[in-house]
Amino acid sequence: MANAVRVLAMDAIEKAKSGHPGMPMGMADIAVALWSAHLKHSPADPTWFDRDRFVLSNGHGSMLLYALLHLSGYDLSIDDIQNFRQLHSKTPGHPEVGVTPGVETTTGPLGQGLANAVGMALAEKLLAGEFNRPGHTIVDHFTWVFAGDGCLMEGISHEACALAGVHRLSKLVVLYDDNGISIDGNVQGWYRDDVPARFQSYGWNVIDAVDGHDAWAVGEAIAQARDWGSNGRELGDGERRFAPTIIICKTVIGKGSPNRAGTAKAHGEALGADEIAATRRELGWSEPPFVIPADLYAAWDATQVGAERHARWQDAFAAYAAAYPEEAAELERRMRGVLPADWEDIMDNLVMDTVMEAQTVATRKASQLALNYLGPALPELIGGSADLTGSNLTVWKGVENLRPSPDSASDLNGGRHINYGVREFGMAALMNGLALHGGFIPYGGTFLVFSDYARNALRVAALSKLRVIHVFTHDSIGLGEDGPTHQPVETAASLRLIPNMDVWRPADSVETAIAWQAAIENEEKPTCLLLSRQNLPFIEREVVDVDLIRRGAYAVHAPRGAKAVIIATGSEVSLALAAAAQLAEEKIRVRVVSMPSTTTFDQQDVAYKRRLLPDDLPRIAVEAGVTDFWWKYRPEAVVGIDRFGESAPASVLNQHFGMTADNVADTVRQVLGL
Amino acid sequence: MANAVRVLAMDAIEKAKSGHPGMPMGMADIAVALWSAHLKHSPADPTWFDRDRFVLSNGHGSMLLYALLHLSGYDLSIDDIQNFRQLHSKTPGHPEVGVTPGVETTTGPLGQGLANAVGMALAEKLLAGEFNRPGHTIVDHFTWVFAGDGCLMEGISHEACALAGVHRLSKLVVLYDDNGISIDGNVQGWYRDDVPARFQSYGWNVIDAVDGHDAWAVGEAIAQARDWGSNGRELGDGERRFAPTIIICKTVIGKGSPNRAGTAKAHGEALGADEIAATRRELGWSEPPFVIPADLYAAWDATQVGAERHARWQDAFAAYAAAYPEEAAELERRMRGVLPADWEDIMDNLVMDTVMEAQTVATRKASQLALNYLGPALPELIGGSADLTGSNLTVWKGVENLRPSPDSASDLNGGRHINYGVREFGMAALMNGLALHGGFIPYGGTFLVFSDYARNALRVAALSKLRVIHVFTHDSIGLGEDGPTHQPVETAASLRLIPNMDVWRPADSVETAIAWQAAIENEEKPTCLLLSRQNLPFIEREVVDVDLIRRGAYAVHAPRGAKAVIIATGSEVSLALAAAAQLAEEKIRVRVVSMPSTTTFDQQDVAYKRRLLPDDLPRIAVEAGVTDFWWKYRPEAVVGIDRFGESAPASVLNQHFGMTADNVADTVRQVLGL
Repeated sequence: MANAVRVLAMDAIEKAKSGHPGMPMGMADIAVALWSAHLKHSPADPTWFDRDRFVLSNGHGSMLLYALLHLSGYDLSIDDIQNFRQLHSKTPGHPEVGVTPGVETTTGPLGQGLANAVGMALAEKLLAGEFNRPGHTIVDHFTWVFAGDGCLMEGISHEACALAGVHRLSKLVVLYDDNGISIDGNVQGWYRDDVPARFQSYGWNVIDAVDGHDAWAVGEAIAQARDWGSNGRELGDGERRFAPTIIICKTVIGKGSPNRAGTAKAHGEALGADEIAATRRELGWSEPPFVIPADLYAAWDATQVGAERHARWQDAFAAYAAAYPEEAAELERRMRGVLPADWEDIMDNLVMDTVMEAQTVATRKASQLALNYLGPALPELIGGSADLTGSNLTVWKGVENLRPSPDSASDLNGGRHINYGVREFGMAALMNGLALHGGFIPYGGTFLVFSDYARNALRVAALSKLRVIHVFTHDSIGLGEDGPTHQPVETAASLRLIPNMDVWRPADSVETAIAWQAAIENEEKPTCLLLSRQNLPFIEREVVDVDLIRRGAYAVHAPRGAKAVIIATGSEVSLALAAAAQLAEEKIRVRVVSMPSTTTFDQQDVAYKRRLLPDDLPRIAVEAGVTDFWWKYRPEAVVGIDRFGESAPASVLNQHFGMTADNVADTVRQVLGL
Repeated sequence: MANAVRVLAMDAIEKAKSGHPGMPMGMADIAVALWSAHLKHSPADPTWFDRDRFVLSNGHGSMLLYALLHLSGYDLSIDDIQNFRQLHSKTPGHPEVGVTPGVETTTGPLGQGLANAVGMALAEKLLAGEFNRPGHTIVDHFTWVFAGDGCLMEGISHEACALAGVHRLSKLVVLYDDNGISIDGNVQGWYRDDVPARFQSYGWNVIDAVDGHDAWAVGEAIAQARDWGSNGRELGDGERRFAPTIIICKTVIGKGSPNRAGTAKAHGEALGADEIAATRRELGWSEPPFVIPADLYAAWDATQVGAERHARWQDAFAAYAAAYPEEAAELERRMRGVLPADWEDIMDNLVMDTVMEAQTVATRKASQLALNYLGPALPELIGGSADLTGSNLTVWKGVENLRPSPDSASDLNGGRHINYGVREFGMAALMNGLALHGGFIPYGGTFLVFSDYARNALRVAALSKLRVIHVFTHDSIGLGEDGPTHQPVETAASLRLIPNMDVWRPADSVETAIAWQAAIENEEKPTCLLLSRQNLPFIEREVVDVDLIRRGAYAVHAPRGAKAVIIATGSEVSLALAAAAQLAEEKIRVRVVSMPSTTTFDQQDVAYKRRLLPDDLPRIAVEAGVTDFWWKYRPEAVVGIDRFGESAPASVLNQHFGMTADNVADTVRQVLGL
């Protein structure tokens, strides 16, 4: 069975002349142990929600996963395998969620799959705690991870695994491909961690020194991990410990290839015709490329057993639904990712109250005020902060912080706010895992400048079309004294460059509420909310037209006979309005456009864009950040900051960097030749 | 002595109404132990190269460092202390290298200072191995780090500390402020690492459970660490182990403040007048704000002893210089960061040979060809790769990989290429440390898309004006089959947004050589070299004018009577030239501008810019990435890719995404209304 995986991998890679045979060939036996006996899944329905989650964190070994999905009976044909790494195939170079049935997450950027898995296991534990009832265990699945040396060297593995230990995610099991080889060769020259000691320091269970080519031994270890995962591990004193488990499997990279096994050369290139022939001989495999004997297909096929398990679970769920109809309906809603029936009312209330209160607050505070409505109304919202809760204001009134208790696989305190610790990248990738699992809309906070730490996880979220929400506060030099290390002059612009990323930088409490609405309704994209540390004046509007604000840009001041348009975002909208007032005294009328979301505005129809920014009116853009970004809107001038900030009180900095109404007004006069 | 630090910190923070008193008050006793007895430094000459390096990785505790510098006799007056966090003061919110004498690195973004320190300690070990001679130990200093829970939670601490263990950096000593409190409160809810076990897993020495308020106990631990650092640690079997040391100091955050000590509230806000008064009583401190008794100044003053040590070292260096004049001169050159006298010849040779060879190669290969000249000629160049050596092509002919040997504090194999492992962020911050220490120009490689992982360290390098060079290969969809997780469509643009970051995306071997020249000559900024995986045609030029290419943009094709200008970078320059040739057949003449470095071009005088991009010629920009960035050059159209890539062979992707000469030519025709 393992050799079927090996030859599919090497043959597909050979045909593509591109790919990574070393890992699939090295982990094939481990895959047999997990997939043929332990993995709970139904190839006929890859969306069955109580399936085990399988994460290939070392995603370059994608052919391992494609081979497993094909052999197990997923909708992935041998033609698909033959189209490995071809345009629009179901078998891209690295696994991409949404492209291939059975692929749970997009991997390749190392370490992130492992962190996604921590999020998935946490989701399972949370849902089990919330929805299971005595006699009705309807949420009960494992999260399995394949990870290699690369994943464990990456810093994100430290963040994610430490947090998995804290939350005692006992149904998370990592199978570590300890082959001693990374791309540069034998890892001893750069990687000498005592991995068992490291994971014990996180409070994990460690099963060490398993022969990764002995599927029986691996299966025993998996059975042990499953038992510990569900029942806890007996400690000497009669206590039971619930903890994640890592199984350290000693393997040979490229196993089966007589001349490349055990070397870095096996890692990332096709073996070539000669070596493939030699490997076939070594494995005693006589079939031509892409032909698998029927008995091996039969041995691998999991459709029948999977369908039976799925059916049994459906029966159990039916019984649960009979006993607990409300909970069952709610769980189904959550897993489908549908918002509650009263969602529009919730938002109407929030916006109406926000308009009525007309508060001058920091937009981070406005965000918290919005959360006071959203948190209680949306049980799927799960918040958090990377150790900046009091600064990011990610807690709503009455929410509890999530805390594990040690004595069962699903016992948590029901908290819906996660103290992620100082772990921005881990948080972001974990949030991706929560979203991928389903049942949750995760949001998490840090300072905007530290979105850098998490940036690649934001990118993967955008690529994977995940509904995750980043609360990035302290969004400009307006944060003041903390200085240039903390002042994100280039960060807003750089986030807007990520495809499929929605970015909002609201100007006041109303825009903040609507940004939250957009974020929650963005079913297929992540959202970044860029929020001020400092108070921002409430914008007086004649009418609050939510639909207009939802378009990402709208006029907040539109006098007749305007001679120019000022475009501004966030904290600079009030500057623009003040500049317009100043100019009005000189009979110079200017329109002020608030553009909280360039990414949303860019999606609008041409007619709206032209109406808002007429071709015959010169434009001036204002934002307390780098100017490069703004030229896409063809302004005559941009008022911004093309250098790092300084440490000083915010009011001093605004003067110093020309973030003043005077300077904006002057710029308008210059543009108009006045 | 510790209380002098405490009151200076709390009073300066109170005056600024901003800052972080908890850490300075908590670590004051540790600071006494280190700074009053062990730290080797000379306040009168903070640039003395054999000084110990001190890194405040938990940089929010900046007032600790400012107080220490002031009290020890550095050029940092009590007025400077009173100007804490004010515009252009020498005491910004977080420590900034270059702003304050005695500040070794810019910290605040957590974890990075620790990684910088690993780089500094590695620099010391390398230089000691290279320059010390029997009887002449002229390079011999420690690197001391203060780090908190936040630093140790961050993933980068895993990457950096694992690598420090591999390289046996025994003269690196971390003093861990184990106060059990982070911003969100008692860390037990999110941080339960067994820190001793963790660091032992990296091969470090651990001194656990030191009372961080007992300066004598801390001093004993430091003495132990110094002994192990210089002489190795006796193991039972008569072996000696050389390893970094972490001293785990149990402390109380905000120590001395009766109502805030031991709480998160002590961390990040001024204590307020009442609590300051109470703290003064608690500490028995009767002096008014910013007054330190003369006897305490005298006790802290390190100028005399520092000057004596410095003088002794100068004598030793003079003896070394007498015995080894060439080595002494070379070490001085290296430490001053001055290039060798024959630098111009080296570059002339490189460029001339590159022009003569006229090779069609990938620019990553062209980079390696350049390194074959630069590596042997510049002993200060120290390369590396985050486990992608064979892909980044960061090794030159004959270079050895760096390997430690276990039996001394300075024994290394002389290798000048570092296998960083899969640790992009750690690599980048470690490179910053190598540059900060002096004696080295570090470069390091990974795939361009994974610059995301390291992004904040690039930002800090730019802010800190460090000469570090990033070799980012696989720079666009041209990498092909690895697919969208690996295709950096938005990354080039986003790197260009970082202030003081130089970015080059060369089009052929000649531009690559000149990009390297620029990078090495960029004394006060980091450089990113964005290099192709795939071959790029050699550009035929009538003359190779190095000075023009150094301007960041120049005409590669400039027919008379041109009707438009195509601006292109990297792999798209050859497309632009092909489009121009196609259009020439239709008698449409277009100029082609190669713009390998927008960041460099932006620095040119207006006359050059106008000459190259005349106002009366419409412009078309072409780059295989997001288009937003290019509008700053006011083109009529941009040919680019505003979505994620796909997995397929590069030639298929170029067609799919319109990265073709035909599409460029069509766009020109459209712009010209033809």
